[in-house]
Amino acid sequence: MTYASYLDFDRETLLDKLCQKLSAKRFQHVLGVEETAKALARHYDYDEDKAGLAALLHDYAKEESDQVFLEAIDRYQLDSDLKNWNNNVWHGLVGRYIISEELGLTDEEILRAIEVHTVGAKDMSCLDKIVYMADYIEPNRNFPCVERARELVYQSLDMAVAYATARTVAHLVDQGFAIYPQTLETYNSFVPYLLKDEIK
Amino acid sequence: MTYASYLDFDRETLLDKLCQKLSAKRFQHVLGVEETAKALARHYDYDEDKAGLAALLHDYAKEESDQVFLEAIDRYQLDSDLKNWNNNVWHGLVGRYIISEELGLTDEEILRAIEVHTVGAKDMSCLDKIVYMADYIEPNRNFPCVERARELVYQSLDMAVAYATARTVAHLVDQGFAIYPQTLETYNSFVPYLLKDEIK
Repeated sequence: MTYASYLDFDRETLLDKLCQKLSAKRFQHVLGVEETAKALARHYDYDEDKAGLAALLHDYAKEESDQVFLEAIDRYQLDSDLKNWNNNVWHGLVGRYIISEELGLTDEEILRAIEVHTVGAKDMSCLDKIVYMADYIEPNRNFPCVERARELVYQSLDMAVAYATARTVAHLVDQGFAIYPQTLETYNSFVPYLLKDEIK
Repeated sequence: MTYASYLDFDRETLLDKLCQKLSAKRFQHVLGVEETAKALARHYDYDEDKAGLAALLHDYAKEESDQVFLEAIDRYQLDSDLKNWNNNVWHGLVGRYIISEELGLTDEEILRAIEVHTVGAKDMSCLDKIVYMADYIEPNRNFPCVERARELVYQSLDMAVAYATARTVAHLVDQGFAIYPQTLETYNSFVPYLLKDEIK
């Protein structure tokens, strides 16, 4: 497969690059997200190759050092409040700029899906939702809410995003972690799609 | 007792006004918050009368109609995004203006404590924390986390605010309710004070 519309190299070359950038465990996770994103794209009649590529790229910057992200926030003149956060927030919101620069990717839809894959957004495109959910439910994931999310995602992407975001917020609070304001925006935007069954 | 520094009338007259504005149940709640706020003020060496007055007034506007709040948001030229929210948010953030106008109260510390008593704030004064916590733990309150909050509040107001806010966010998510962004700011600001014991 070539990604000629988006990149100057093919899938095999991209996999080589990912394998170099990422741990074996994360590389396998990325392949799981690709497989799931393609399945969701088929189900929701979205461009399967594009969904697969966005999925392959979503964690490209995940293992960069904090220093790389902090410098990138300055270099790309991003909101300096980002410096108060951490890798979980940076690898998407800042990672998109690193990916664009290092791989020459300019497709705004793919870059946006990478940008919001962890924190979501008030308004999410079909591709944004596919990558966000594929990341949550890919086959290597194993946590209490994942089976329910796997059921919901084929019923409605909006219901699934609502469920995954609500469970993520609940998890962060239970663990005593700070919550990025954009995650709350995602929650508030999608909470009307929460099924009554999901309310405890 | 007179509230001569703050109001033109005494506690008895204020209680009469509150009794007229509020249901019997809420009036009793308000008395419980007053009692608790005074106890906390004694413990933390804060002005007991001032804490008691802020507590008595905190829910003054709680039973106003939505229409009253929506008109007040325009009249006081408050952030129009407030119109997307509801009584839970309005009775503090907008209520402070109604209280000031109807009762002639101008003390900024008391008005601020009333303003933030439900959603909290990134920075909270001692009085803000006393009213916020007294509202959460007053003797008529009866929910799973209240006993732990009653213990924590005499150890540290910051730990108690962190705990109450985390439990509030968790409750809102479990119920599928939207979360006001200022509530998240409070959570993120106080989460460093969460005891490890409280993390599940």
